[in-house]
Amino acid sequence: MKRILWLLAFVALGLGVGSILAARRPAADVAVNPEAAVRTVLEAQETAWNQGNVDAFLLGYWKSEKLTFSGSQGIIRGFAAVEERYRKGYPDRQAMGKLAFTGLEVRFLNPDAALVLGEWHLTREKGDIGGVFSLVFQKLPEGWRIVHDHTSVIPVKN
Amino acid sequence: MKRILWLLAFVALGLGVGSILAARRPAADVAVNPEAAVRTVLEAQETAWNQGNVDAFLLGYWKSEKLTFSGSQGIIRGFAAVEERYRKGYPDRQAMGKLAFTGLEVRFLNPDAALVLGEWHLTREKGDIGGVFSLVFQKLPEGWRIVHDHTSVIPVKN
Repeated sequence: MKRILWLLAFVALGLGVGSILAARRPAADVAVNPEAAVRTVLEAQETAWNQGNVDAFLLGYWKSEKLTFSGSQGIIRGFAAVEERYRKGYPDRQAMGKLAFTGLEVRFLNPDAALVLGEWHLTREKGDIGGVFSLVFQKLPEGWRIVHDHTSVIPVKN
Repeated sequence: MKRILWLLAFVALGLGVGSILAARRPAADVAVNPEAAVRTVLEAQETAWNQGNVDAFLLGYWKSEKLTFSGSQGIIRGFAAVEERYRKGYPDRQAMGKLAFTGLEVRFLNPDAALVLGEWHLTREKGDIGGVFSLVFQKLPEGWRIVHDHTSVIPVKN
């Protein structure tokens, strides 16, 4: 009986330590959990934007001439053109404002492709702006990247 | 020599007839060619719209509460809500106008999912309107259907 109690105590301890390790292992989660990997890309974009770092923000996109971006200017093709759109549209910290993504929804179309829906909000001195986006992510050799972005503005109702 | 000429004539005739049969076989193409299947859904939507038939237009969408539509009203969820959006926004033939999809680009993410980019134009008496759309199609038991639609307006420049 005593041996069984010792055994139970060891098993309980093992489960407890295991849970703690699992909870403290975000890097490993990203490796095994594709949804965490996709969300990490978007969190990194948000952080980069709010640090005024457009280069780091752009890392979320597929660095390819096949990248596409649909928005108020129609369909923009290629990483270079998408980069130009961001640099021209947001030349300084004031124009960039503070970015927040909300209501993220990640839907896997297969193990290597996901559709992400969400809302974006820019808090700016000259007036807030926001809307919705639909992103298609693909798992590429370099990691999960946005291969298509459709971002649109929802006019603010007063 | 004569036999070779006869042989060549037969081969040429065979190729010609084959080409004609291939060109006149849209139904078979749709069965074997997923891009043709996806384009057929969009052509059917265009035709239905221009006949004022919203029911037939809606057949292109996944009849599921998981269908999503992102646009000027944010994210709309479920087939019923998408249907309501169309019926309220386009109550009659005059509001519907004449629809044209242009610049369609079909990108397969895997054999059962595709991203479609394109432009839409509505010719209406009260003023034309148009913009861009990004559609995610999935191959479901009922056929290829739009499972997510992001449609936005591009303001007309004067």
